[in-house]
Amino acid sequence: MSLNLDKTEKNEHLYMQIYHYYRNLILEHKLLPGSKMPSLRKCARELKLSRTTIENAYLQLAADGYIISKAQSGYYVTNIAARQTPIQSPGITRQPACRYDFASSGADRESFRFDLWRRYIKSAFRQDERLLSYGEPQGEADFRQVLSEYIRERRNILCSPDDIVVGAGVQSLLHILCPLLKDKNTVSFPTPSFVQGSTVFRDYGFDVRYRNKDSGVIYVSPAHMTKWGDIMPISRRLELIRYAAEHNSLIIEDDFENEFVYLQKPTPSLHSLAGGQGIVYIGSFSRLLLPSIRISFMVLPEPLKSAYLQKAACYNQTASKAEQIALCQFIRDGHLAAQTRKLKRLYSVKLKKLLTTVEVIFGRDSRIQIGDAGTSLALTLPVSLTGKELKEKTREQGLRIQTLKETPGEVTVILSCSSMPAEDFPPACRILHEVCSRYPVQGAYS
Amino acid sequence: MSLNLDKTEKNEHLYMQIYHYYRNLILEHKLLPGSKMPSLRKCARELKLSRTTIENAYLQLAADGYIISKAQSGYYVTNIAARQTPIQSPGITRQPACRYDFASSGADRESFRFDLWRRYIKSAFRQDERLLSYGEPQGEADFRQVLSEYIRERRNILCSPDDIVVGAGVQSLLHILCPLLKDKNTVSFPTPSFVQGSTVFRDYGFDVRYRNKDSGVIYVSPAHMTKWGDIMPISRRLELIRYAAEHNSLIIEDDFENEFVYLQKPTPSLHSLAGGQGIVYIGSFSRLLLPSIRISFMVLPEPLKSAYLQKAACYNQTASKAEQIALCQFIRDGHLAAQTRKLKRLYSVKLKKLLTTVEVIFGRDSRIQIGDAGTSLALTLPVSLTGKELKEKTREQGLRIQTLKETPGEVTVILSCSSMPAEDFPPACRILHEVCSRYPVQGAYS
Repeated sequence: MSLNLDKTEKNEHLYMQIYHYYRNLILEHKLLPGSKMPSLRKCARELKLSRTTIENAYLQLAADGYIISKAQSGYYVTNIAARQTPIQSPGITRQPACRYDFASSGADRESFRFDLWRRYIKSAFRQDERLLSYGEPQGEADFRQVLSEYIRERRNILCSPDDIVVGAGVQSLLHILCPLLKDKNTVSFPTPSFVQGSTVFRDYGFDVRYRNKDSGVIYVSPAHMTKWGDIMPISRRLELIRYAAEHNSLIIEDDFENEFVYLQKPTPSLHSLAGGQGIVYIGSFSRLLLPSIRISFMVLPEPLKSAYLQKAACYNQTASKAEQIALCQFIRDGHLAAQTRKLKRLYSVKLKKLLTTVEVIFGRDSRIQIGDAGTSLALTLPVSLTGKELKEKTREQGLRIQTLKETPGEVTVILSCSSMPAEDFPPACRILHEVCSRYPVQGAYS
Repeated sequence: MSLNLDKTEKNEHLYMQIYHYYRNLILEHKLLPGSKMPSLRKCARELKLSRTTIENAYLQLAADGYIISKAQSGYYVTNIAARQTPIQSPGITRQPACRYDFASSGADRESFRFDLWRRYIKSAFRQDERLLSYGEPQGEADFRQVLSEYIRERRNILCSPDDIVVGAGVQSLLHILCPLLKDKNTVSFPTPSFVQGSTVFRDYGFDVRYRNKDSGVIYVSPAHMTKWGDIMPISRRLELIRYAAEHNSLIIEDDFENEFVYLQKPTPSLHSLAGGQGIVYIGSFSRLLLPSIRISFMVLPEPLKSAYLQKAACYNQTASKAEQIALCQFIRDGHLAAQTRKLKRLYSVKLKKLLTTVEVIFGRDSRIQIGDAGTSLALTLPVSLTGKELKEKTREQGLRIQTLKETPGEVTVILSCSSMPAEDFPPACRILHEVCSRYPVQGAYS
C-alpha cells in the first residue's frame, strides 16, 4: 500500500490518515462500489498499526457512508460514495469515531429485529392510496386506537383515541401543548439534564425551575428520576398528585424508560393513580424500537383536549405517516410487547454485568449509584482532572463518556450499557481506569 | 344479500348503511381476511342502487382499513379489520368519503412512482447501523450536502450544508426559527389562509398582520401569492428586498409551489436576488413527492445561523431518519428532478383542462381567476347560498370544495386539479353547477 503515514502525530490523527487514504481511493474510483475492504487484521499487519486504529478509520468511513459492514463478512465499498462529492464541512454533531461508547443511548445492535421491522415498513409503503394524502393532524386514527388499547393494557390508562395526539418526538408534542397553557408561566423539571424539554418551555416564555413543586406545570419522568435510574416511589407519586391538585398545577408525566423498571411489579403511572385528572401522559418509542423512529404521543385531559381540538387543524402532523402505519400494525401483531420483554431482560442482564465489571476494575476507589430502572449507572471517580478534561482524555483513547457532575478531585460519570456489547465492558472500563490512574488524587489509586 | 336498506333516508345515509353492513360482516368474521368484495357493478345491481353509492361505501371502508383495493382486480378484506375493535369515536379530521375532491392538495394518483420510492426506502432500512442511533439534530449531513447542491443548481442559492436545517414540515422549522427572533415581535403574511404559519408565530407571542411590510418579519411565498397561483413579479421582489433591508426586516421566503411555475423561465428566488442577506429560505417536498413525506428544510443567513448552532443540540430532529436517507439518494440519482419535470408537465395540462371544463360548464355566469403557477383556479359563482351552505350542499352530492370568500349572492371557490383525475372534471363541475342552479340569484342561470 502506498500510504505515507506520519506516525509522529498523535494516535487519534493516525486513524484519520487511514480514513482519508481510503476515502480518496473510493472517490477517485480506485476502489469500486461493491469491492471488499481488506480485513482489519490484514490492514493492521501491513501498516504496522493496531487493529483499533484501523477499526476507528473504518468506523468513520462507515459513518460517512463510504463503506458498509456486512455481518460475518467484512466491510464493502458502497455505491453511495462513488457518486458523492466529499463533505467539506463537518456538521455540528459530527464527531470522530470512537471504539467504545458509554455515552450513547442508542439501541443494542443485537436487540432489534430489522428484518421484522422492514417487513412492516414495506407493507406500509404498499398502501399507496393512504400515502397520497396528508396525515391526520392528530395522528392516524387507527394508530391512536391501537395506542389507546396498548396503554390501557400496560399502564392502566383509560382514554379514548380522541384524547391522544401523535407527534415526531416529545418536543413536537410540547410545541402543541405549551401554547395551550396560557394560564401557566412556571415549569419545574426534576433536573437540568433534559434540555430538550426545558428549551421548549423557555422558548414559550416559561420560567424554568428545578424540583420546585410550587410551579404551574410539573414535568416528571417517574421511571427516570435520575440518570442512574431511580424511580419515584408510590408514596411520593400519591403525594405529588395531591399537592398538584390542591395547587391547580398541571403534571406532565413523561413515562420515559418505564419499560425498563426492573422491579417485581411495574409502578402504577401517575395518570392511572390520578384517574387522568390534571395529568398529561407522554409516551415514546425511540428506546423500544429504533432511536431513528421519531414517534411519541400524549394523552390530553379535559379541558386541554377541548382547547386542542379547537386548534387541531392549525398544526400539521410531524410524525411519518408510513412509520405510524407500520407501528400500528406492529403493535397489533404483538411485536412491541415482545420487543419490550426482550429488551427489559437484555438490559437487566447487561446492567448487572456492567455493575460487576465496574466493581472489579474500580474497586474501593469509586462510588457507584444504580437505581431500579434504566440502562445506566453513575460512577464517581477520584481524579485530578475536570469533567471536560476527563472526557477529552478518554476520547483520545477511543472511549466516549458522559459526565454528570464534578467537585475538586472527583468526577461523576454516567455509563450507559444500552448500545455497547457486554464483551466491551472490560476493555472500555480499563481505558477509563487507566486515564484516571494517570491523574491521581492524593491517596487514591495507591 | 340480507341487507334491509332504508331508502327513505337521504342518499348520503344510504352509503353509510352499506358501509355498516359490510363492516359488521368483517368484524364478525363472516367476511374473512383476503376474501374479495363483490364488484361495484354487481353490488349495485343486486341492491338496486347507483354505482356511486356503493363506491362511496367502499371508499369509506378502505379509508377505515377494512378493505384494500388492488389494481385491476377489485377490493379485498384486510386482515387488519379482523383483529380490530371498531373505532368508536370519529377523529377530528374524519369525514365521510366523497366521490370527487376539488379541495385536496394531495398528489395525483398516476404521478408518483411508488415502486421506485419503495426501492429507496427499502435501501434506507437496510442501513442498520445508521438507524440504531438518533438522527443529527440539524438533519443528516449527507442529505444536507445533497440539498445544498440541489438548490444551488435549481434556485441559484449558494449555501453550505451547515446553513441548512431539516425538519418535519414547515411548522417544525418555525418552532426552531421563532425563538431565535427575539428582537422581532411582528410578522406579516400575504393572506390569512396559511394558518399553520400564523399559528406558530402567534404561539410565540408575535403580532400577526397581513400585507404589512412594516413588520419585523415578512413571510412570503413568491410562487403562491394567491390561492389561484399568482406569482410575485421580479420588480416587486427587488422592491421587497430593498425595503426589508432598509428597515432591518427579516424575509422568510417559503418557496412553496415554485416548481409549478408555468412561465418560460423560472423567476429567481428572493434568496438569490438578495445574495442570501436577510433571507431565510424554506423548501418542502410534500407536493413533489408524497404529501405523507414530512421533510422540509430552511437555509439560515448569518447571524441566525450562529444563534441556531449555539442551541442546535437542544432540538431533536423531527424528520424521519430513514426518509432523509432515502430522499438523499433519490435526489442524488436524479429522480427528484425527473419527478418535478413530470409533475410540472402533468399539472400544467390538467389545469388547462380544468379551465376549459369550467368555462364550458359555467360560461358567462362565472368569473375565473388563474395565475402563472400552482394547481388551482378560483371560480366566483352567483348563488343565493353562503359559502358554508354551498360546501354542505355539494358535499351531499359527493363533491368536496374549498371556499375562499363570499359576498351576498356570490361565493368564490378554489378548485384544485392536483389529486383529481382529469376525466372527473366534467362530472365534478356539473355537480357544482347543478347545486348552484338550484339556488339562483336573480338574473343568473337564466
